[in-house]
Amino acid sequence: MYLRDAWYVAAWSHEIADAPLARLLLEEPVVLWRTGDGTAVAFEDRCCHRHAPLSAGKIVGDCLQCGYHGLTFDRTGACVEVPSQPQVPPDARVRRYPLTERHNWVWIWMGDPAAADDSLIPDTYWHDSPDRRAVGDRFHVNCHYQSLIDIQLDNTHSRFVHPDTLGNAGSLRHSPKTTRDGDVLHNHRRMPDSDPPPIFSRAAKIDGNADVWVEWAYTPRAGIIAFDTGIAEVGSGVFDGDRSKAVTMFNTHGITPETATTCHHFWVSARDFALDDPEMHKMMSGIRDVFLEDVAIVEAQQRIRNYGSDAPQIDIGADVPTIQARKLVARLIAEQ
Amino acid sequence: MYLRDAWYVAAWSHEIADAPLARLLLEEPVVLWRTGDGTAVAFEDRCCHRHAPLSAGKIVGDCLQCGYHGLTFDRTGACVEVPSQPQVPPDARVRRYPLTERHNWVWIWMGDPAAADDSLIPDTYWHDSPDRRAVGDRFHVNCHYQSLIDIQLDNTHSRFVHPDTLGNAGSLRHSPKTTRDGDVLHNHRRMPDSDPPPIFSRAAKIDGNADVWVEWAYTPRAGIIAFDTGIAEVGSGVFDGDRSKAVTMFNTHGITPETATTCHHFWVSARDFALDDPEMHKMMSGIRDVFLEDVAIVEAQQRIRNYGSDAPQIDIGADVPTIQARKLVARLIAEQ
Amino acid sequence: MYLRDAWYVAAWSHEIADAPLARLLLEEPVVLWRTGDGTAVAFEDRCCHRHAPLSAGKIVGDCLQCGYHGLTFDRTGACVEVPSQPQVPPDARVRRYPLTERHNWVWIWMGDPAAADDSLIPDTYWHDSPDRRAVGDRFHVNCHYQSLIDIQLDNTHSRFVHPDTLGNAGSLRHSPKTTRDGDVLHNHRRMPDSDPPPIFSRAAKIDGNADVWVEWAYTPRAGIIAFDTGIAEVGSGVFDGDRSKAVTMFNTHGITPETATTCHHFWVSARDFALDDPEMHKMMSGIRDVFLEDVAIVEAQQRIRNYGSDAPQIDIGADVPTIQARKLVARLIAEQ
Repeated sequence: MYLRDAWYVAAWSHEIADAPLARLLLEEPVVLWRTGDGTAVAFEDRCCHRHAPLSAGKIVGDCLQCGYHGLTFDRTGACVEVPSQPQVPPDARVRRYPLTERHNWVWIWMGDPAAADDSLIPDTYWHDSPDRRAVGDRFHVNCHYQSLIDIQLDNTHSRFVHPDTLGNAGSLRHSPKTTRDGDVLHNHRRMPDSDPPPIFSRAAKIDGNADVWVEWAYTPRAGIIAFDTGIAEVGSGVFDGDRSKAVTMFNTHGITPETATTCHHFWVSARDFALDDPEMHKMMSGIRDVFLEDVAIVEAQQRIRNYGSDAPQIDIGADVPTIQARKLVARLIAEQ
Repeated sequence: MYLRDAWYVAAWSHEIADAPLARLLLEEPVVLWRTGDGTAVAFEDRCCHRHAPLSAGKIVGDCLQCGYHGLTFDRTGACVEVPSQPQVPPDARVRRYPLTERHNWVWIWMGDPAAADDSLIPDTYWHDSPDRRAVGDRFHVNCHYQSLIDIQLDNTHSRFVHPDTLGNAGSLRHSPKTTRDGDVLHNHRRMPDSDPPPIFSRAAKIDGNADVWVEWAYTPRAGIIAFDTGIAEVGSGVFDGDRSKAVTMFNTHGITPETATTCHHFWVSARDFALDDPEMHKMMSGIRDVFLEDVAIVEAQQRIRNYGSDAPQIDIGADVPTIQARKLVARLIAEQ
Repeated sequence: MYLRDAWYVAAWSHEIADAPLARLLLEEPVVLWRTGDGTAVAFEDRCCHRHAPLSAGKIVGDCLQCGYHGLTFDRTGACVEVPSQPQVPPDARVRRYPLTERHNWVWIWMGDPAAADDSLIPDTYWHDSPDRRAVGDRFHVNCHYQSLIDIQLDNTHSRFVHPDTLGNAGSLRHSPKTTRDGDVLHNHRRMPDSDPPPIFSRAAKIDGNADVWVEWAYTPRAGIIAFDTGIAEVGSGVFDGDRSKAVTMFNTHGITPETATTCHHFWVSARDFALDDPEMHKMMSGIRDVFLEDVAIVEAQQRIRNYGSDAPQIDIGADVPTIQARKLVARLIAEQ
């Protein structure tokens, strides 16, 4: 049901602090914590003794101690102490998940540890680059994770879901080009001399038409979609590679399944302009409300899906990227 | 499980206004809306494209537009526009339910549209007749719809559930007469020279005994029970057809299944006396609290039923009307 | 799934007052009420007529009257009146459960009434003895009842769950002795010259080490665990039977299953010292918070168990009493 041999965003780095953090990922309870030297560690959140959650315990030096009988586990998941007896049973250990930390996000590998190749995680340097100014958050969303992926991949919804911010008619007129590179799906939509999304007009202080683009890469093996999107004066050369007169926004969506009807949505939106302008920062932070509009529609959709239906779905032309993405994920799941 | 080839009250007319209204009926999500000319329309609340609820969309002229990708449906349920492409796929449509509006209630037909004969809906002229003064509301009730029908059909509960308002010992002494006319069940209970329900004593300003009657007609093919009930001075001729000295109350109960354990209760109570008397209006509006006493007992009953039980039910004589009603509904369901 | 041929604490005596009390026990709805002479009675909370809960009715003299149609039941469960008709159907009765009241607790027998031998209920005289001062309460706990039994039987959790009150390292060093006497499990742990639980140090005003003991008896056929625990000066003879210089606390835990994932926890803590000392009473009443620490850990454990797991549990030496208790209960269930 889930693509297990994949990295997923488990948490923001700052979420893992002094106390262990409980999180349900792919229907498995996970505890995230840091050793004394700051290394992030992920265990199954289930003591091997009586299945109490280790997240109800505490960090003791470089170990995690169960809050029930005090069994203590080192960073590898091995039990190193049972307080009521001198010996530790030889099989006493909890499952440890491969974990890596990159640009403020903590990534977990939920499948076969031997396959955990962290080169599969795309670079997201814009999360903490000095040349960018980023905002971000985590939403708990009541929908199947693929519905949340769908809404990110199909921008033709913007005019209806985000009429005052991202919505533009250009997305409806200009078909995107979707290509596959290994297990990564790429998409770009170029809208020359087109009506821009309202938020971009305000950001770039452009009245009327502009050259607009939206590109994204969807990496199922890392559960993320990375957007490169922006606007420039008409004819300023942005489609020939000259972005010197453009404003751009790099957005990242880390979408991690929780259950069959819920998921975690980690997101970042990083601009490359007016980095220290408080007014602009306030306006661009409004992307949070835009993403909450996505949440509202996919949660409404899930409520209807929960009633069940054998009714077919009618496809339209704009579904090409989402259909390709679902086929790609289905193939990767079938192969595992 | 449900009688589908039947009309059900879907909404009060005033509930369907500028925005689409979502309602779950017989476990199906339904959206109710009005075209520009005010015609009420009911669709399956599930866009044919990606199953988003159309109730999260908006009314555009005479059409309903999905709030996700903007697919637009005319009053027949046919998709007439897909904003991101020039063509509309030929099968793009949503299910439309037959709907009709009568005396402030909107009725829906959930079964085979070809069988939707609106002459099956009984006349409820008292809802908005100038000769009557009506109060009404909709309750969401946490019980199987047949439990709510039962409590309306068996008035011997009144002395225990409504001791201060409708309860009278006469209902316990005088057996009703139950007859069937086609698929409609009729019942009348005449209580000559009997202790009247307290609310009627106060309404008619009668001390002591009175001639009292309770009649109802239950129409499963319209999901409603219509009451004709009242009181007159003893011997004033009310049982011979002379109601000139009587006060009467016509009550309607539209009971519409929502799920196996919940239903909608639409009700009206219309009196034919003291139409403009504010004190009397306040007293007679108290029928709302009386009906909420019914709700309390059937919800308590449902909580116990949810625990499950194979225990038999012991029948008593007063169960004749409810047993007949359940048999009638069971037969109609079996025939469909 | 449950041991049915057993007594369970159903309620505190004071909980059964003027109105019938509804309580779910072993997944069965039960109504508890008192006749006019004060005798506590337990019925199935389901009228034999239409399954309305009798707890929604009222007490009329020595009978319980259903709040729906007024069927009236005497203390044996026999229906003695159907208000709408002169005859009572011969099979009209509700199930009555054997009930007995002892020292402020009301005990119910959920199994075969013929086997309800009330000599199976252990004496809990300390609940209301003039030589003791007791505090007590009822908690509704979101865990399987055996998890709550486990935490009471294994005191090695105290150092981790109750570090500031009951936790002492002695429990970790001194193994208890567990014995079985018929269907009752006994356990005692003697900790001579040992660090005492902090709450006992404060109660006995002992600095440093003390002679400490914890004894308990678990009686599955009464669903209770009775503790005899205390502290005395080192060498004062407490292990030779001289308690004249000791302070003792008798605690009772009545653990009654509600559903597969919830239970009722009735508890009493009775001290034999400083009976009228308000400061000491306040301190010893803090045992409530200690027992709520137990609740927090078993509810956390249940949340993890609700996710499901085939993972084995690793046993440790301290599990001997809980494993024996579970085996005893399993055998008694298998025998019934």
